[in-house]
Amino acid sequence: MIETPYLLFLGDAPDQLAAKVAQGIKDWRPDNAVGQYRMPGCGADVGLTDMTLEEAKAAGAKTVVIGVANRGGVISQAWKDVLTQALIEGFDLASGLHNLLRDEPDLVAVAESHGRALHDVRVPEVDYPIANGKKRTGKRVLAVGTDCSVGKMYTALALDEAMKKRGMKSTFRATGQTGILITGDGVPLDAVVADFMAGAVEWLTPDNEEDHWDIIEGQGSLYHVSYSGVTMALIHGGQPDALILCHEPTRKTMRGLPDYTPPSLEQVRDMALPLARIANPACEVVGVSVNTQHMSEEEARAYLAKVEAQLGLPAVDPFRHGADRLAEALEAV
Amino acid sequence: MIETPYLLFLGDAPDQLAAKVAQGIKDWRPDNAVGQYRMPGCGADVGLTDMTLEEAKAAGAKTVVIGVANRGGVISQAWKDVLTQALIEGFDLASGLHNLLRDEPDLVAVAESHGRALHDVRVPEVDYPIANGKKRTGKRVLAVGTDCSVGKMYTALALDEAMKKRGMKSTFRATGQTGILITGDGVPLDAVVADFMAGAVEWLTPDNEEDHWDIIEGQGSLYHVSYSGVTMALIHGGQPDALILCHEPTRKTMRGLPDYTPPSLEQVRDMALPLARIANPACEVVGVSVNTQHMSEEEARAYLAKVEAQLGLPAVDPFRHGADRLAEALEAV
Repeated sequence: MIETPYLLFLGDAPDQLAAKVAQGIKDWRPDNAVGQYRMPGCGADVGLTDMTLEEAKAAGAKTVVIGVANRGGVISQAWKDVLTQALIEGFDLASGLHNLLRDEPDLVAVAESHGRALHDVRVPEVDYPIANGKKRTGKRVLAVGTDCSVGKMYTALALDEAMKKRGMKSTFRATGQTGILITGDGVPLDAVVADFMAGAVEWLTPDNEEDHWDIIEGQGSLYHVSYSGVTMALIHGGQPDALILCHEPTRKTMRGLPDYTPPSLEQVRDMALPLARIANPACEVVGVSVNTQHMSEEEARAYLAKVEAQLGLPAVDPFRHGADRLAEALEAV
Repeated sequence: MIETPYLLFLGDAPDQLAAKVAQGIKDWRPDNAVGQYRMPGCGADVGLTDMTLEEAKAAGAKTVVIGVANRGGVISQAWKDVLTQALIEGFDLASGLHNLLRDEPDLVAVAESHGRALHDVRVPEVDYPIANGKKRTGKRVLAVGTDCSVGKMYTALALDEAMKKRGMKSTFRATGQTGILITGDGVPLDAVVADFMAGAVEWLTPDNEEDHWDIIEGQGSLYHVSYSGVTMALIHGGQPDALILCHEPTRKTMRGLPDYTPPSLEQVRDMALPLARIANPACEVVGVSVNTQHMSEEEARAYLAKVEAQLGLPAVDPFRHGADRLAEALEAV
């Protein structure tokens, strides 16, 4: 559990895209961030107040979150000067970088001498159990995709927002680094040891009130041969009551797999549902989330109408048109 | 890679069952073991010559393999006395125990001072790649089960033996601790980090001659919610040309999951085959291996005939009747 609120460290991000994590926090949990910290030459701006460490401290920030990807996998000396000063001034640090804060001896030494925590969200901090498959109380919905990076996290966060607006009880359950930094906790599922994957998902989505929904962030795809085992563990560990199919219709090949063509939504439905029913015989596919960012508004509306007719399910782009119809579908479960 | 041949350490095994690993090595790779080492009170005997460390050394043994489960998860002082002496006399040690040799400071110190290796086969010793899904040359067969512990390893080893007898080119590819100790190498798949599972299986089964078969040891089951992600990674990382269905027909509930009923062979076939065809569109189910140990000979023959008629595939118990008909089915692929 990472202490909130945050100061978002944008460092010397060359452009807006490099600050994707900070942007996600700003978009989805604005209350979690008091401001942004930019170094000279920073090309990103997530639209929060620029603050010094002192100003952020005064505004109540507890943790400096590295909201930017670093260049070449190296934590530069320029970054370290700021991060070290942050530890000295009483902030914890949180990072989703591939190279870990805990592998930097100078940061570790300062964190220890000042009693501060270094959170590397790529590394599990919990000894997860083996999954026991026992039926849990409360409801769960899982986003399953035709491919990696089709918008599963975005769909889940938008759904959480739409459900809360309708007065439904819901919790977004992060299973990846960005989601964990956005919300402050979760399971970095791709870094969990194989035997404990499904158990980690059970741990993440425990017994709850009967009318409460866990919205589980999906990972990978049953059709993505590099990561399908992770998807499988989410389907069985999550024992979802509902699945939402996620798709990016303009993609020609699977992400990182130039020899593989993405499956149709029907194929994913027909593969995922019988697998999900092993853990939860009542599971249903309730809706479709389409990432139409590479389509015009007209193309998007036509495509969504076509999918809706073909699958007989509400089909929306939650970014363009909101997730309200998906929330409505869950309310009917 | 563990250096062979071995001296099999049976320690103070209370009974034969506790020496399962040693028995497996003796049954499947008798050339890998020069003898057995038993301590006073040992209740197990795998039928090899009893040897002292000196005798085993003279017979050419390179590694002392712990072929026995320890009681209560503790490596006792009595065991340590023998293991320490073995290191001093120039043996490496190999173990599949949950508690690792490398976590015992006294063994580590002696191993280091004598330049010997400690192999904990539960822990991956390789940085596996992310799976790339590229089609590899050579052929692969994977054992998929209705449940855990239905005889997948046994089926794969029996198949390897039968194929070699027919003059076919084959290699047994171990994916679990016992299999790794039996053959000296493999991937401890249940201990691999999620993102690298499928890549580890690709690494284990690389390009090979067109008429060579990798026989991949299966793990878990698509229907076992605790471990289905590991099974999934084997199906996609292994890109099998052929699947063999493995079943134990007398089991009433899934192993370790009292609330779950095992699936039928038809269900496993219909779930596994479309998933396998994502990575290898030519994949076929070629046969069935049934563990009939809890049936009489008559019951077993009747059951196998029934399965054979229902599925239209050769159905054998490789332990009772050999794996020759499965090898024949692969020859026809």
